[in-house]
Amino acid sequence: MNRADCLERDRDDPLRAVRDRFRIPENLIYLDGNSLGPMPAAAPELLARAVEGEWGEGLIGSWNKAGWIDLPARLGAKVARLIGAAPDQVIVADSTSVDLFKLLAGALSLRPRRRTILTEGRNFPTDLYIAEGLARLVPGVVVRTVEDPLAALDADTAILTLTHVDYRSGRRHDMAAATEAAHRAGALVLWDLSHSTGAMDLELDRLDVDLAVGCGYKFLNGGPGAPAYVYVARRHHAAIAQPIAGWMGHARPFDFDPQYRPAPGIARQLSGTPPILSMRGLEAGLATFDGVDPAALRAKSEALVALFLALTERRLAGHGFEPVTPRDPNARGSQASFRHREAYAVMQALIARKVVGDFRPPDIVRFGLPPLYLRFVDVWDAVERWGEVMAGREWDRPEFKIKQPVT
Amino acid sequence: MNRADCLERDRDDPLRAVRDRFRIPENLIYLDGNSLGPMPAAAPELLARAVEGEWGEGLIGSWNKAGWIDLPARLGAKVARLIGAAPDQVIVADSTSVDLFKLLAGALSLRPRRRTILTEGRNFPTDLYIAEGLARLVPGVVVRTVEDPLAALDADTAILTLTHVDYRSGRRHDMAAATEAAHRAGALVLWDLSHSTGAMDLELDRLDVDLAVGCGYKFLNGGPGAPAYVYVARRHHAAIAQPIAGWMGHARPFDFDPQYRPAPGIARQLSGTPPILSMRGLEAGLATFDGVDPAALRAKSEALVALFLALTERRLAGHGFEPVTPRDPNARGSQASFRHREAYAVMQALIARKVVGDFRPPDIVRFGLPPLYLRFVDVWDAVERWGEVMAGREWDRPEFKIKQPVT
Repeated sequence: MNRADCLERDRDDPLRAVRDRFRIPENLIYLDGNSLGPMPAAAPELLARAVEGEWGEGLIGSWNKAGWIDLPARLGAKVARLIGAAPDQVIVADSTSVDLFKLLAGALSLRPRRRTILTEGRNFPTDLYIAEGLARLVPGVVVRTVEDPLAALDADTAILTLTHVDYRSGRRHDMAAATEAAHRAGALVLWDLSHSTGAMDLELDRLDVDLAVGCGYKFLNGGPGAPAYVYVARRHHAAIAQPIAGWMGHARPFDFDPQYRPAPGIARQLSGTPPILSMRGLEAGLATFDGVDPAALRAKSEALVALFLALTERRLAGHGFEPVTPRDPNARGSQASFRHREAYAVMQALIARKVVGDFRPPDIVRFGLPPLYLRFVDVWDAVERWGEVMAGREWDRPEFKIKQPVT
Repeated sequence: MNRADCLERDRDDPLRAVRDRFRIPENLIYLDGNSLGPMPAAAPELLARAVEGEWGEGLIGSWNKAGWIDLPARLGAKVARLIGAAPDQVIVADSTSVDLFKLLAGALSLRPRRRTILTEGRNFPTDLYIAEGLARLVPGVVVRTVEDPLAALDADTAILTLTHVDYRSGRRHDMAAATEAAHRAGALVLWDLSHSTGAMDLELDRLDVDLAVGCGYKFLNGGPGAPAYVYVARRHHAAIAQPIAGWMGHARPFDFDPQYRPAPGIARQLSGTPPILSMRGLEAGLATFDGVDPAALRAKSEALVALFLALTERRLAGHGFEPVTPRDPNARGSQASFRHREAYAVMQALIARKVVGDFRPPDIVRFGLPPLYLRFVDVWDAVERWGEVMAGREWDRPEFKIKQPVT
């Protein structure tokens, strides 16, 4: 395997043309699309139209004429295709944190005689915080945070909540097995798909998943802080309670009815007025998936990660990196992470060389490998630069050891 | 009083030059800035830079380099000046609905032995829905919705929650009196300032207000669905619980600590990642207030509403409009509303004549009169066109009676 082989794989890549849907800075190898996806080439014009045309010219009339009012459901339907869900089960609203809160509370309403939220200690921190915040608010609700959640399912478990792909290690849960185990115990399941959607095919409907949330600004390329999405299986639509019962989730919001009557279907998951400019960013991000088969994303993702792991094994041998991403392609997401004593400084040195990944405390360098637009040659070049950084001890400069507030 | 007098008042208006900070469509009299403020002239460039520069070029590094991470607090401080609050007591986050939910739950945490949320039936519908949604979620919490909330304060009232200016009638509560009454009863007070902020001076700190929320896209001109803001008086910062305990409200969000430790101060009111593009829209909106004295807003607002009421009384006599906005300038906001049998059709006919106000069910025409950029001559011209609409029975066309989903 050499650089020419990588270029050949790029030529044969069925997703080859999709890269042109993005504007990625020259000479930058951006391996952080799992933290903030790059800008779609269509985003500037779409946003300019939203600002100058829809807001500036159309003003209040744009709620109808520019279709602002339909954006949450319309973008939800586009997400639905990527997660294997019928379109009327997904809606875009708020942030992942707020959506998690709503769905955990909703799950408790669907299992009123059970009071335990079950999760695992390595879940994404905000998922843990949100569950515990809900438990502090609602007397009787308990959060059990365990090592092996499937073994801990019991008759009090209302909801098992897990993040599908771990943000640090890239380890992926077996969604079918965990969902089935939860159902066997009479519990519901809530998946956080923030590190999965847009990087692989998913089958929420086929696996009988109950609830899910996911981030709009990672693999979905929706722009900084893009709104998140909510999935609720149709069988739960009529019964699920929505605790943040704002006017946009009312059956007839513009009647200004003093009585709350929840909208039928997924729309009751809406709360306040959606942030339209950020919704337009997400629209541009979702459009980069038009015509893309999610199964092709998975295939390319597997190949990219396999290549990355193989090349680093060869090129970085002896430099003290311990891969933490599983070897089994069915047990990982679209990233490669490594433990290293000097993880922070190494990532700073890589960024100085225009290879942008992430540091995750305490000691992990993480590289996102989004199949939608990343090239095999990018993987080659990234590992080459990384090899040079290590060979030249470039990470060993004082300025690379001063921690920034955000990386 | 004639048109020339209005032009003269515009020449003498100390806020005269501020209108140039907006791009308002030619020949349109926009009296709906209390529903969606018009576009600041600086917004297109600010958004283009956020999209192409910060997102497209800066990518993940923009959280630090472009100051995305500071936007919630920085914009909060700009709102603070407009509401008479020290800057560290306000932060921009989520939507008004979500923020109401957080603060009502927070109020209950500050008054743990009291379980009643007290409000009035004519409160804005979403405020009622949110309170009731919280009560459905938390056993023991009661929402009392009464005609005269000050008379209903009792030893179980944890929080009195009112909207300062009524969205329909424009009636304004006496904030000092209601706040004092709540405190006398040992309760806290939460003001929804959505129809006040940016239209008048407010004195939250001086009046010892506990909690407040407000909308970003009405008088603040932040763009469609712009994020809302939260005010928490400093004396409550240490003790208030935040139920939607997301990672952005953590003391050290980028440590990815599995334990939630709330940020000190107002920052714990944050939940998920803020929608940056919509935050930039709000930034443009708030910049239109730079150097503007809120007391000057109040003075001009009073004059605009007085003029509107005087002119309509003369020009529309006999057409069946019943003013519902109080005559007393201390008892109203910056709008004028009227009851009419054909309110819906009249507003449609006015919109066709490029006078844009709002219909509010069941029978109200509502005109927002934002002092920041509205001219006295606009008021004159609006009432003139309205007079013509009525004289010519222009509202009596079938197409004006078909209700649109949103107005």
